Amino acid sequence: MKTNNQSPASHVYYDDTIDSAVQNAFNAFEGYKKLPVTSRIALMEQIIAEIQANRGSLLSLAQKETALPGARLSGEIDRTINQIRMFIALLDDGSWKNAIIDTALPDRQPFPQPDLRQIQQPIGVVAVFGASNFPFAFSVAGGDTISALAAGCPVVYKVHDGHPETSMLTADCIVQAMSKTCIPEGVFAIVYTTSNESSIQIVNHPLLKAVAFTGSFAGGKALYSAASSRPEPIPVYAEMGSTNPVFILPGKLKESAEQIALTMVFSNTLGVGQFCTNPGLMTIIDSPETQKFAEAFKKHLSEAAGGKMLTGRIHRSYSNGISKLKAKPQLEFIGEGKNSGGDFEGVPHAFSVSGIDFLADEDLLEEYFGPTSIRVIASDQIELLEVAKRLPGQLTVTVWANQQDCEEFKELFHILEGKAGRLIINNAPTGVEVTHAMVHGGPYPATTDARTTSVGSTSIYRFTRPVCYQNFPEMLLPDELKDDNPLGIVRRINGEYTKEMKL
Amino acid sequence: MKTNNQSPASHVYYDDTIDSAVQNAFNAFEGYKKLPVTSRIALMEQIIAEIQANRGSLLSLAQKETALPGARLSGEIDRTINQIRMFIALLDDGSWKNAIIDTALPDRQPFPQPDLRQIQQPIGVVAVFGASNFPFAFSVAGGDTISALAAGCPVVYKVHDGHPETSMLTADCIVQAMSKTCIPEGVFAIVYTTSNESSIQIVNHPLLKAVAFTGSFAGGKALYSAASSRPEPIPVYAEMGSTNPVFILPGKLKESAEQIALTMVFSNTLGVGQFCTNPGLMTIIDSPETQKFAEAFKKHLSEAAGGKMLTGRIHRSYSNGISKLKAKPQLEFIGEGKNSGGDFEGVPHAFSVSGIDFLADEDLLEEYFGPTSIRVIASDQIELLEVAKRLPGQLTVTVWANQQDCEEFKELFHILEGKAGRLIINNAPTGVEVTHAMVHGGPYPATTDARTTSVGSTSIYRFTRPVCYQNFPEMLLPDELKDDNPLGIVRRINGEYTKEMKL
Repeated sequence: MKTNNQSPASHVYYDDTIDSAVQNAFNAFEGYKKLPVTSRIALMEQIIAEIQANRGSLLSLAQKETALPGARLSGEIDRTINQIRMFIALLDDGSWKNAIIDTALPDRQPFPQPDLRQIQQPIGVVAVFGASNFPFAFSVAGGDTISALAAGCPVVYKVHDGHPETSMLTADCIVQAMSKTCIPEGVFAIVYTTSNESSIQIVNHPLLKAVAFTGSFAGGKALYSAASSRPEPIPVYAEMGSTNPVFILPGKLKESAEQIALTMVFSNTLGVGQFCTNPGLMTIIDSPETQKFAEAFKKHLSEAAGGKMLTGRIHRSYSNGISKLKAKPQLEFIGEGKNSGGDFEGVPHAFSVSGIDFLADEDLLEEYFGPTSIRVIASDQIELLEVAKRLPGQLTVTVWANQQDCEEFKELFHILEGKAGRLIINNAPTGVEVTHAMVHGGPYPATTDARTTSVGSTSIYRFTRPVCYQNFPEMLLPDELKDDNPLGIVRRINGEYTKEMKL
Repeated sequence: MKTNNQSPASHVYYDDTIDSAVQNAFNAFEGYKKLPVTSRIALMEQIIAEIQANRGSLLSLAQKETALPGARLSGEIDRTINQIRMFIALLDDGSWKNAIIDTALPDRQPFPQPDLRQIQQPIGVVAVFGASNFPFAFSVAGGDTISALAAGCPVVYKVHDGHPETSMLTADCIVQAMSKTCIPEGVFAIVYTTSNESSIQIVNHPLLKAVAFTGSFAGGKALYSAASSRPEPIPVYAEMGSTNPVFILPGKLKESAEQIALTMVFSNTLGVGQFCTNPGLMTIIDSPETQKFAEAFKKHLSEAAGGKMLTGRIHRSYSNGISKLKAKPQLEFIGEGKNSGGDFEGVPHAFSVSGIDFLADEDLLEEYFGPTSIRVIASDQIELLEVAKRLPGQLTVTVWANQQDCEEFKELFHILEGKAGRLIINNAPTGVEVTHAMVHGGPYPATTDARTTSVGSTSIYRFTRPVCYQNFPEMLLPDELKDDNPLGIVRRINGEYTKEMKL
C-alpha cells in the first residue's frame, strides 16, 4: 500500500521490488559493518530523537489503525525508546561482543599453540516480520530491528497490514536518522506485500541470512519451513506465542485466593488479551479454596471490559475459538466479561475442565489468542504434575506458591524448567521487562529456536556468529581484540574475565 | 555389529532398538540434570582414567580399523583427554553458565521491576554421529559427546562403521566411568545401525532435542533436512568440511615462497589429507615468484607420501574426484606424491587453473576429501578478490601476508571475515586447538549452524538454552543464581561482571 502523504522513497519496496530491497541491503552490509561502534550508537540516538519528534503523529496513526487505547500506545512508545536505549548502553559497554583471547604458548610441546582470538560478528541481511499486537515495540523500530542494527546487520522490514501508516512513519524516522548520521543507504528498508507468497519470496532471497518474526504459529512455521528448505538454510527466530500456563498451588491459594483471582483476570484481559504472554491456562488442585477462587475469578471477570480487537482476522479467529470451546461438552462455561457491542469486540471468557478431561483433549493445549482462559481442576498433585508434563513449549509458566508449596512441589519446578523460557513466581506473566536477564523465548512451538530470546540484551546474538582470528597482526584485529584493549571492554583472557588494558 | 568379546550390554542398541535408546536417555535426563556439577566432573575424570587404563587396546583396535599410524592415534587419544580436561575446568569454573542477574527495582514507576535471573540449562537428549577420520577426538568420547554430557544432556551415540570395535571399547570406558561415579543408566548409549534409514529414525525420535554430526555434506544435509521437517523441528550441528582456501599474497610470497610451499604441502598431505581443515584451494597472483613457488611445491609434493585411506568408500570418492579433475581441460595437472601401491592408497595430487576458468566452474568450489589441492592463478588483485567473493562458507581461510600485504589487501580480509569460522595468518589451517577462543564452524555449507563451534569450550552452548527465573525464592533458584553466589562464579549483575558473594 502507498500512503497519501508520501512520495515513493528509496527505502520503500513492494511485491515486485523485493529483490532490490534485499540486494541493496546486501550492498550496504560491508560498509555498515566497517563503521566504528560510535556510528551505530549515533544512529540509535537519532532514531530516538526522530521518534520523539514524531510522537504525536505516530500515536494518532497507531490509534486509528490498531484501536489500542492512547495510554497503552504511549507506554509502548516509551518502551520502544527504552529498548533502543538498552542497545545503546550495550554497544557502549562492548562486552556483548564476547571477546575471548587465548594467548600463544610458543614453548608448548610437541607444537607451539598459536594466538587465538574470538568475537561475535554480524551475519548479514536480516528480514524482520513485525507483529500485529505491538505497532511500536515489536514492529518497525522494535526489538528485532534494533537488535539486528545494533549487531551490524542491515534490516529488510516486512510491514504488518494491521498498521501500514504507522509503519511508514516509523520507517521515515529510521531513514531520517540514518541520513543525519551518515549511515549507508540500504541498511534499512520496508516492504509492503500483499500476499503470503511475497513473504516467502523475501525468506527465499539468496542474500538473506536470518529471519525474525512475531506472530501466529501458522505464520512462523511457514517461514521456518521455507527457510530450512532453501539451498542455503538460514535461521528463523519466530516467536509464535503460547498458552502461558499458570499453576496455583494449595498453600498459596489458601492465603491469597482473592489476590490471585484479581491478578489473573487483570493479566488475562489486559489489552483485550492480545499479549503473547497472556495466561490462557490455569491449573489448580480441587479443594474447598478452589470454590472461593472460582467465585472471585467470576466476579472480577464479569467486571472486566472487552474491547475492539486488533484486526478483523484476529477477532474472527477469537470468536471461532470461543465457539469451539463452548461446543465441548466436557468444558464448563464459567462466565464472561463486559460486552460493549462494538465492532470486533473481544469479550473476556473463561472455561473450566477436569484434569482427566484436559489430558484427553489436545485442542485444549492450543493458544486461543484473546481474553480467554481455561481452568483445569486437577484431582490431586499427581494429576497436576501430569498436566505439567503434557505441556508443549511455552514462553512463560507461572506458579503461585508459598514457602511450603515450594518444598512440596519441587518436582513441578523441575518439569516446568524444561517447558518454558521464563518461569515466574507469584506474579502475572504479562509485562516483559527489557533487561539483560530477560528470556522472551522458549521451546517449540513457543518459538522455532529455544536457544534465543527476542527481548532483552541477549537477543542480539540471533544476528551474530563467532569468528576466530589465529595469529593475526594487531593492525588487522578488530578493536575488541587488540592487545591494549582500546575500547576498555570486559574480555575473557586465558579463561579469566578482565578489563585489563594490556595482554 | 556385535563384537566377539562383549556380551550384550544395556547401553548397546541396534536398528530395532533405537526407540529404547532414546527413551532410556530421556528417562535419565531429569536425574542427570539434577546432580551437582561435582558429579559431572567426577564422571569426566573417571572417563579419562578408563581411557588411560585401556589405552593399549584402544590403540591397537583403532590401528586395525582405521589404518591410521600409531603415533597419530596416540596423539589423538592425548587430544581427546585434553578435551575432556578442558570441560572439567569449564565445569569447575562455572562461569560458562552465563549467570545474569538483574535485581528488582521496587520503586520504579509506573510499575516495579521484578527480580530477573538467567542461566543456561541443558536441552535434553542429544544424538551424536561420530566421524570417520577421528576415531577418538570426534567419536564416542569426542568433543560432541563430552560437551553434551558436560552441559547436562544424555547422549545417544551413533557408531561410525569405520571403527565399530574401537567405538565399543570407548563406550565401555564411558559406561564403566558412569557406573563408578553413580551416574544414572541411560545417560549414555551407543547405537549400531546398518542403514541411513536408521540414522533418520534416530533424528526423528520425538524425545530427541538436538543432533551433532561430523562428516560429509550429503550426510549432514540429510540429517538437517529430516530434523527441520519433524513435527517439532530440532537443531542439527553438522560439521561438513570445506575446501579451506588459502590466499598467498605477493609480498609474503617474495619473502618465503619455499617455506609456504613446504608448509602447504605438509598441511595438505598430513594424515592422507583426511582432515576437515585440509587446505584444498590456494589462490596466488601471477608473478615471477609464482613460478618459484610452483617449483618448490611440486618438489615437496613429489616427496610426500600417500597412505591407506580410512575406508574403501572414502578412497573411491577420492579417486573419482581426481578423475573428474583430470578430465577438465582447463586444469593443469601439476604433479603427484609417492604411491606405495597399497590398498586404498590416497596419492597426493595437485592441479592448477587460471582465475578466469576457476570463476566459471562451480565444481572447483567443492571439497575433494583427501590429499589434493587446486591452485588458482589470479591475474591481479581484482581477480583474487573475485575468487574470495565467490567462496561458499568455510571452516577456515588462511592468508599468507607480510605487513605491506596486510595494508594493501584490507578488502580481502573484510570479505573473508564473512566466509569462515576461523581466519589464519601465515600458518597451516590443519591443527585445531582446543581452547576457549577456537571456532571450528562457519557459514553454510561448512556447517548447518554458523552460530556454533564443534571444538573449544563454547561448543557447549549447542546443547543449552537460556531460562529466566522471575521473582524466584532462594530455595528454588539454581546455585549459580543464588544471592550469595555459593559456587563463586563470575556473574553479570546489573550489567557488571563480578564474582561478588552477595547481591
